[in-house]
Amino acid sequence: MSLLRTIERTAKAAKEASRALSRASARKKNAALSAMARELLRDTGRIMAANRKDLRLAAACGLPKAMVERLTLTEARIAEMARSVRALASLADPCGSVDRRWRRPNGLLISRVRVPIGVIGIIYESRPNVTADCAALCLKSGNAVVLKGGREAACSNAAIYTALRRGIAGAGLPVACVSMIDPEDRKAVGYLLKMDRYLDLVIPRGGEGLIRAVVENSRVPVIKHYKGVCHVYVDGKADIGKAVRICVNAKVQRPGVCNAMEALLVDRRIARRFLPVIVGEMRANGVEIRGCRATRAIVPGTKPAKASDFGQEFLDLVLAVRVVDGVGGAAAHIAEYGSGHSDAIVTEDRSASRRFLAEVDSACVYSNASTRFTDGCQFGFGAEIGISTDKIHARGPMALEELTSYKYVVTGNGQIRD
Amino acid sequence: MSLLRTIERTAKAAKEASRALSRASARKKNAALSAMARELLRDTGRIMAANRKDLRLAAACGLPKAMVERLTLTEARIAEMARSVRALASLADPCGSVDRRWRRPNGLLISRVRVPIGVIGIIYESRPNVTADCAALCLKSGNAVVLKGGREAACSNAAIYTALRRGIAGAGLPVACVSMIDPEDRKAVGYLLKMDRYLDLVIPRGGEGLIRAVVENSRVPVIKHYKGVCHVYVDGKADIGKAVRICVNAKVQRPGVCNAMEALLVDRRIARRFLPVIVGEMRANGVEIRGCRATRAIVPGTKPAKASDFGQEFLDLVLAVRVVDGVGGAAAHIAEYGSGHSDAIVTEDRSASRRFLAEVDSACVYSNASTRFTDGCQFGFGAEIGISTDKIHARGPMALEELTSYKYVVTGNGQIRD
Repeated sequence: MSLLRTIERTAKAAKEASRALSRASARKKNAALSAMARELLRDTGRIMAANRKDLRLAAACGLPKAMVERLTLTEARIAEMARSVRALASLADPCGSVDRRWRRPNGLLISRVRVPIGVIGIIYESRPNVTADCAALCLKSGNAVVLKGGREAACSNAAIYTALRRGIAGAGLPVACVSMIDPEDRKAVGYLLKMDRYLDLVIPRGGEGLIRAVVENSRVPVIKHYKGVCHVYVDGKADIGKAVRICVNAKVQRPGVCNAMEALLVDRRIARRFLPVIVGEMRANGVEIRGCRATRAIVPGTKPAKASDFGQEFLDLVLAVRVVDGVGGAAAHIAEYGSGHSDAIVTEDRSASRRFLAEVDSACVYSNASTRFTDGCQFGFGAEIGISTDKIHARGPMALEELTSYKYVVTGNGQIRD
Repeated sequence: MSLLRTIERTAKAAKEASRALSRASARKKNAALSAMARELLRDTGRIMAANRKDLRLAAACGLPKAMVERLTLTEARIAEMARSVRALASLADPCGSVDRRWRRPNGLLISRVRVPIGVIGIIYESRPNVTADCAALCLKSGNAVVLKGGREAACSNAAIYTALRRGIAGAGLPVACVSMIDPEDRKAVGYLLKMDRYLDLVIPRGGEGLIRAVVENSRVPVIKHYKGVCHVYVDGKADIGKAVRICVNAKVQRPGVCNAMEALLVDRRIARRFLPVIVGEMRANGVEIRGCRATRAIVPGTKPAKASDFGQEFLDLVLAVRVVDGVGGAAAHIAEYGSGHSDAIVTEDRSASRRFLAEVDSACVYSNASTRFTDGCQFGFGAEIGISTDKIHARGPMALEELTSYKYVVTGNGQIRD
């Protein structure tokens, strides 16, 4: 059978499974999640063995250290994977909940009810835990999922997938609720992205190149999780102690993630007081500072920032610093260089705060808090499939509710239109 | 300047205008809508003259009669256009409203706030009133819009556009809130669809061919308004009087629109009693019936339905009729042949109704009411830009709220992440 036919059959089977899954009770879906977690634990040995195969190949290919680290599974990581899957069972089922309900003058009762999206394609790179996470999140929200992982994690993903399918089948749901596409064939993704007859949504999880390629080729709607170029703006009316704590947390606590600060904007009115303090603190934390001209005039010896340092996602202990003129200057800088992810103001001036929160067009805007809170769990959503930088359908932390659509249920007693 | 550069400049100017528009007060936007309506009325003569040019060209090209009808403007139609624009001023502003607000254990206060999407591209065909409607809906919801109409309506659209811009400028908003792309150049749409740096959403309004071409070529997210293949299922436990009224209304009241019934499904248990009645009623209303084998056995002389008659959007006084086995048979038929638009059950059996409403995966599902109610105004939304058959972002009647996105506004007093 040709690859195109194989992909088409997989997508069609997923669509059929999604119909059964959309009717499954919360109880049945939760039982499947528990079974999936149990099978992952039971297969720990097999998954580890598969992972060792991937790691041997990675070593042979000279895969970069950071990718090898992401690829590596341990017993503890598999246990954590199983825990995440099981934890979803305790969250509320987003399907069937009523967003709102109203009655029309003619007596029609209209309810907007949450329903699964249908079939979701996930295209991702090296981390094998994404396989279990995405399968579980989609199943919990009533969606069938078609997974396409990276070639470098092929054996690990296949072993995890085998365990998950056994759990699903054991719980009496169709195994096609979760399916996986052979990562070896480069044409497979292209074919999958044309399956708009069966797929309702594609979520690419990975670097910018992967996401752009998906957007370029997809007929299926895509929700993008692009980079996070997050800013903290320290206003002239900031409490300096608060500003230092927030900036250090946003930059240093976990610099390799998308909600970490990449550029610090300092109001000219406070620059002479604040910059020497924050630069000292950052350096004490091992952060390399790249400053604009005004920054370097105040803190001599600072490395000059290149134009390309603004708008850059360093994902490292590097920070671009720029002096700006008030909230207006900060908002203009963020409009030009930001990525619409997370941006914060530190100020005691409520009108400055209001203006920043209104004018900065990012998924999450903060006043007097660290950008590091942009996270489904920190928001209280219990889980997340990623942080959307799109403005269509889902924005910011994308959790179970964002994995649903809705339909209008209209009940009457014979109403017809005049 | 090359066409690509022209389109890019237009898109970029729209993005800048959208920033100013997103900060405009409801009052200012409403003043602009009133001014736009006023300028439309003032330019009635010029718009009519431009329309006559289009009509002359249409006659010379031998444009089909239905298209000429859609293209034709009269004083009354222009007055109606202005009324629709002005009516939006009295609707609530969707921007700034808070979907929900909650406090986290660490004291952070999180609000999900409605914001404009940004820049919306509308690609449409012959009706010139779409120009005014879409410009006004986008402006009201705080979005800049880039319009690309059909070549056959080029003069009419340009005249309407001129009037609208004068209104916008007079109200003190940037004219680039509404812009229009020369419909003469076929490459223009292709370029526009690559402007994902500036455009946030594209809505194609037109036939299936137009929509597919947009989906095929767009890097910008698309919300699709595909066809409506709507079904009414008459259950074994239906009230026959109600069923007749609903079916006749759904088919006959306005057969040329997307929420009209295209296929009637009749439960085998009631077919002998119901079919002769409904076929008689339909014929009395000038409807051509195309029946399945079982239908023809009960009502001899009925024209046989071809396989392609099911799933067909006739938009005419033609009805496909099929006998099915209960709710399960109806749901299976709709899953196979429906377009996910609007489908209804007629029954007095509450469990049959519940099952149908749950299992049929369409934007709007009805119990004991006509499918003709799928409409923003009938739902009480005041206006609509169309009926989405997508499941991402907006489904069913797409009104002002669906023309917005949201952002999370998070306020704290120095919170940092552990």
